[in-house]
Amino acid sequence: MYHEVLMPDTEIVVKPRDVMPEGAQTLPAQYYVSREYFARELDMLFRQMWICAGRAEEIAAPGQFVVRELPGDNVVITRGPSGSLHAFHNVCRHRGTRLCTDKSGTFAGSIQCPYHAWTYGLDGRLIGAPHMDDVPHFRREDYPLHRVHVDCWDGHLFINMSDSPATLFQQLADLPAKFTDWRMEELRLGHRIVYDVKANWKLIVQNYNECLHCPNLHPALNRLSHYLSGENEPLQPTYMGGRMDLRPGIETLSMDGTCPRSLLPGLATDDQRRVYYYAIFPNMLLSLHPDYMMVHTLWPVAPDRTINVCEWHFHPDELRRPGFDASDAIEFWDMTNRQDWHVCELSQEGIGSRTYTPGPYSNREDLLYAFDRMIVQLHDGK
Amino acid sequence: MYHEVLMPDTEIVVKPRDVMPEGAQTLPAQYYVSREYFARELDMLFRQMWICAGRAEEIAAPGQFVVRELPGDNVVITRGPSGSLHAFHNVCRHRGTRLCTDKSGTFAGSIQCPYHAWTYGLDGRLIGAPHMDDVPHFRREDYPLHRVHVDCWDGHLFINMSDSPATLFQQLADLPAKFTDWRMEELRLGHRIVYDVKANWKLIVQNYNECLHCPNLHPALNRLSHYLSGENEPLQPTYMGGRMDLRPGIETLSMDGTCPRSLLPGLATDDQRRVYYYAIFPNMLLSLHPDYMMVHTLWPVAPDRTINVCEWHFHPDELRRPGFDASDAIEFWDMTNRQDWHVCELSQEGIGSRTYTPGPYSNREDLLYAFDRMIVQLHDGK
Amino acid sequence: MYHEVLMPDTEIVVKPRDVMPEGAQTLPAQYYVSREYFARELDMLFRQMWICAGRAEEIAAPGQFVVRELPGDNVVITRGPSGSLHAFHNVCRHRGTRLCTDKSGTFAGSIQCPYHAWTYGLDGRLIGAPHMDDVPHFRREDYPLHRVHVDCWDGHLFINMSDSPATLFQQLADLPAKFTDWRMEELRLGHRIVYDVKANWKLIVQNYNECLHCPNLHPALNRLSHYLSGENEPLQPTYMGGRMDLRPGIETLSMDGTCPRSLLPGLATDDQRRVYYYAIFPNMLLSLHPDYMMVHTLWPVAPDRTINVCEWHFHPDELRRPGFDASDAIEFWDMTNRQDWHVCELSQEGIGSRTYTPGPYSNREDLLYAFDRMIVQLHDGK
Repeated sequence: MYHEVLMPDTEIVVKPRDVMPEGAQTLPAQYYVSREYFARELDMLFRQMWICAGRAEEIAAPGQFVVRELPGDNVVITRGPSGSLHAFHNVCRHRGTRLCTDKSGTFAGSIQCPYHAWTYGLDGRLIGAPHMDDVPHFRREDYPLHRVHVDCWDGHLFINMSDSPATLFQQLADLPAKFTDWRMEELRLGHRIVYDVKANWKLIVQNYNECLHCPNLHPALNRLSHYLSGENEPLQPTYMGGRMDLRPGIETLSMDGTCPRSLLPGLATDDQRRVYYYAIFPNMLLSLHPDYMMVHTLWPVAPDRTINVCEWHFHPDELRRPGFDASDAIEFWDMTNRQDWHVCELSQEGIGSRTYTPGPYSNREDLLYAFDRMIVQLHDGK
Repeated sequence: MYHEVLMPDTEIVVKPRDVMPEGAQTLPAQYYVSREYFARELDMLFRQMWICAGRAEEIAAPGQFVVRELPGDNVVITRGPSGSLHAFHNVCRHRGTRLCTDKSGTFAGSIQCPYHAWTYGLDGRLIGAPHMDDVPHFRREDYPLHRVHVDCWDGHLFINMSDSPATLFQQLADLPAKFTDWRMEELRLGHRIVYDVKANWKLIVQNYNECLHCPNLHPALNRLSHYLSGENEPLQPTYMGGRMDLRPGIETLSMDGTCPRSLLPGLATDDQRRVYYYAIFPNMLLSLHPDYMMVHTLWPVAPDRTINVCEWHFHPDELRRPGFDASDAIEFWDMTNRQDWHVCELSQEGIGSRTYTPGPYSNREDLLYAFDRMIVQLHDGK
Repeated sequence: MYHEVLMPDTEIVVKPRDVMPEGAQTLPAQYYVSREYFARELDMLFRQMWICAGRAEEIAAPGQFVVRELPGDNVVITRGPSGSLHAFHNVCRHRGTRLCTDKSGTFAGSIQCPYHAWTYGLDGRLIGAPHMDDVPHFRREDYPLHRVHVDCWDGHLFINMSDSPATLFQQLADLPAKFTDWRMEELRLGHRIVYDVKANWKLIVQNYNECLHCPNLHPALNRLSHYLSGENEPLQPTYMGGRMDLRPGIETLSMDGTCPRSLLPGLATDDQRRVYYYAIFPNMLLSLHPDYMMVHTLWPVAPDRTINVCEWHFHPDELRRPGFDASDAIEFWDMTNRQDWHVCELSQEGIGSRTYTPGPYSNREDLLYAFDRMIVQLHDGK
C-alpha cells in the first residue's frame, strides 16, 4: 500500500509507512516496572554495550576526570600523562572505599584513597600501599583498580564495562561514516541541563523516536518542522533513527525558527534543511541540527527513574564570537524536553496502574514496535 | 449475665454487653503490617465492594470530575451531558498514559490524552485516535476506557471496580431505610479536612467502633456524650455501628455542647438526642448528628498508611444563612480526630514491634472482635 | 619474625605485629549490604548479648526513664521506687499501643497507655485495666509488659533482650578488673553528640580497631599519639582492644595536646600516658583517656545505617569547677569522629558497588581480621 499525501499546506510530501502487523501493540507493564527486567537491561545492555559518557573535551588535560554512575557502578574516566584515556571502577582494592567523591575535577598525578592512602596511577596501577610491603605474599601488581574500557568517537566519550568488548567502532557500524560531515569532534559544549525524569529509560527512547505526538504536545516544534516530514531508517542492531525537514523559511530549531549562527561547515545542501535524530543504543540520543548538535545521555536509576543529561554543542568559532548567545536553541529544546519528560512520566504512571493493558501502535510508531521486539528478545532470549 | 448499671451521675442507663468468649484477643501483627495481607484486603474488599467516593454534589454539572486513588488504581468519576454518572480508570488505551492529572475539575465535553491526543467521550468511549484509521484492523469501539461502576445513595457517591458487582443497594441492605429521616441527599458540604494517618485502615475502623477509649483520650467528647451510653447493633455483613446519647443539656457535639443550627428537619424526637456512628465497609464512616452529618472516607496507601478524608455536611438552609459558621462542630471533631489518629499511629507502631503479642478484648470491644473475625475469614478463607 | 623499629623521630618503640596469613582479606559485600545478614546480626548479637544502653546517671531517680531502639525493638529502661532497675518493651499488652513516645523523662509513679488507660507499675506489672474485670477469665498478672533484662557495670547501663541471658559480668569477663582504676562509676556526662552514620555498624567497629589510617586521615591525632605506638590484646570472645601512647610532651587527646583538667585519681603512672580503646561487643566503644572517658554506643538502623551516640564523661570535681570547659577534648574527638564516619560511609558506598572484591589486610589490621572471622562464624555456623 503506497500513497503520497499532499498536506493541506502543500509544503511537504509525506512518505507513507508500512502498515503495522495485526496485534502490534505496546509492551506489557513488567517491562517498565519490574526490578528484575530493569536489572536484566542493565546487565545485558548497559554493561555489555558501549555507553556514551559525555565528551572528550571534559577531560582534555592529563589528570582531568569525570565520574559516571549506574545503579551499583561508579566509574572514573580520566586521561593519563601521555594523553591516553583510562577508566576504572571507583572502589579502592584495599577495603573497598569509594576513592573519589567529586563528580569531576583534576587529579594531581595520582589517585589516593582517603582511608589508608593506597595510591594509584592515572592508569589504575597501584603505586603505593603503606605497610603492605611487610606482608610477604602481597604484590602491588595484583591490585590495580578494576578496569573499564574507554574510547572516543568524534569527540564523544564511550565506556564499556564488559570484560572483552567488541570495539566501539564495531558497535557504531556505519554511524561514523554517516555523520562525518558534521565534524562533531570540533564542536564544543555550550550548555548542559540535567533532568531527573520519573520514567523508565525505554519510554524516553520511545518518545524520541516518533513525532506522532508532536502536533498535540509540541505545537512550537510542529510549526518549525512538520511532524509527518522526513523519513526513518529501519531499526539497526545498535541504533535507530531518521530525519525530519525544516519547513520553508525555517532556518533551524529555535524559539522563532531563525538561526543567529553560521551553519556548520561542510554540510551537504540537503542536510542544511534537516534535523537528524538517532538513538544510539542503549543511552545516547544524537540530534544533529544545521548549526548545532544536541546530545542526550540516559542514566537509568530505577525502573521508573532516569537521569537525562542534555547538552548543546556549537562550533568553536561561534562560541568564541563576542556576545555568543544560544538561548534561542536552548530555550526551545528545554521547553520541548520538559513537555516530553512530562508525558513520559504520565506514561510511567499509567503503565504502572493495575488496569493498564497494552495498546495498539499506529503505522507511525514503527520504530517503537521494532525497538520493543529487540527488548522482548533480550528478556525472553529469542 | 445482665445487670443495669446506674452511673454515679445517675444520668445514664448502661446497657450491658455480652461477655467476650475466652481467648478473644486482638489480631496478630501480620494483619496490620504485611504487604501480602494488605494486597489481599485491597483485592477482596476495596476492589470487590462498593466504596464511598465522596458526594454527588462534587460532580453536579456535566463534565465535572473527581479523581480517586487506591494503590495501583486511579479512577475518574464524571457526569455525562445527560446527567448520568460515569467512572473509568485514568489510563489511555493507546500507550498507557495517565489522562488526567488534576484531582478535580471540569472536562470540556471530552477527555483528551496529552500524549497523542486520543480522545474519549465522558462515557469513556474512544471518539478520536489520530492516524489509527490507517491501521486496517483497528476499531475504535475496542478501546473504551476501562470501566468502573458508579452509583449514588442519598447524595453519597460510590464506585465499584469489580467486573459484575452486586448493586450498591444490595450491599447497603437496610441502611437506606434506617437513615431516611436524615434526608442526606439534601445536605451540602461545609468543610473538608484530609488527614494522612500512619496507620493501617483497620485500626481506624476499630478505633471508630468503640468508645472505651473515650474517657481517657477524649475528655471533651465524654463530657458531651457518656462513653457507656447508647447501644451497638450486632455486626452485619457489610456494616457495623451503633448510637450514643447526648448528656442532659447537651444539644450536639460541638466545642461547648450548644447547637447554633436548627436541627435537621424530619428527625424523630429520639434521634434529636443521639449520634449514630456507622462503619460501612470497607471505607466509609458515617456519623449522623442531630444537626449535621460527618463522613470519613478511608483510602489505604500502605499497610501502615491511610489517607482519611473527613467532611462536615450541613442543611442548605443553614449554609445559606448569613454568617454561617460551623467552627464549633468542625473544631470539636478535628480535635477529636487528631486524638484518634494519634493513638492509631501509636498502635501501628507498637503492633509492628517484634515483641507485640495479641491482647485481650474487653466486653465493650465486641464490635472489634466481630470485625476481626470477618477479616480473619477473608484471609484464611473460612 | 620479630624486629623492633626505631622511628625516625626516635620517640617510640614499635611493637611488631604477626604476619597475616596468606589470603587474609576483607569480607565479601553481603556482610555489609544484605538485609538477611543484618537481621541475623541483630538476632544473634544485639538480641542475645548485653548491649550498652547509656549511663545509670540518666535514670538516677525513681521514675526516670530512657528509651532505646533497635529495628523492631523499642525498650523503656526505668528505675523503681526502691531504686531497682527495670526494662521492658514499650508496647501495651492490650492492643499493642506504643506506651511512651518521649525518648526520656520521668514517669509519675506508673505508666499509663494513652489509648485505653491500661496502667503498669514501674516494674512492668499491670496494675489497672478499665472494664477488664468484667471479663471473667482475665487475670492482670498474665499481662505484665514484656520484660528486658537490665544491669549496670561501673555506671554503664546494659540491657539484654534474650529470655535467659548469662549475667552481664560473665559477658564482661576480665574487663571490670582491667579498668577498676578509672573508677568509671564516679564519672559524669559532660557532653553528648549523636551521629547518624550511613554505614554498617561493623565498619565503625573495624575503623575503631586500627590506626593504620591515622597518619593519612587524622594528622592531628597522629601528632598527639603515634599511630604505630602501643599494643593490641588478641581478640577475646566478647571484646577486643588495645592501647596507644601519648607522644612526649602530650598530656591528653585534645586540640593542642595540653590537659586543663586534673588526671583521673587512682591511675597508675603508665596509664597516665596512655589511651585505651576497647570495642565491647556488640555495641560499645570505650575510650579511656588519662583525664576523661569517651563512650560510643552503636545502634544499627539498617545494613547501611547506624546511629552512633558519642559521650564524653569527666570527673565530677572537674565538672563542678567554675568555668569548666571541655571543648578541647570534645572538639578534638568530634573532628576525628567526623573524619572516621566519613570514610566509613565511603567504604559502605564502595563495598556496595557491583565490582567490589575483598582486599588484602596488612599486618596492622590483625584485630579486624580476627573480628571478621568471628562474624563469619556467626553467619556460617562454624
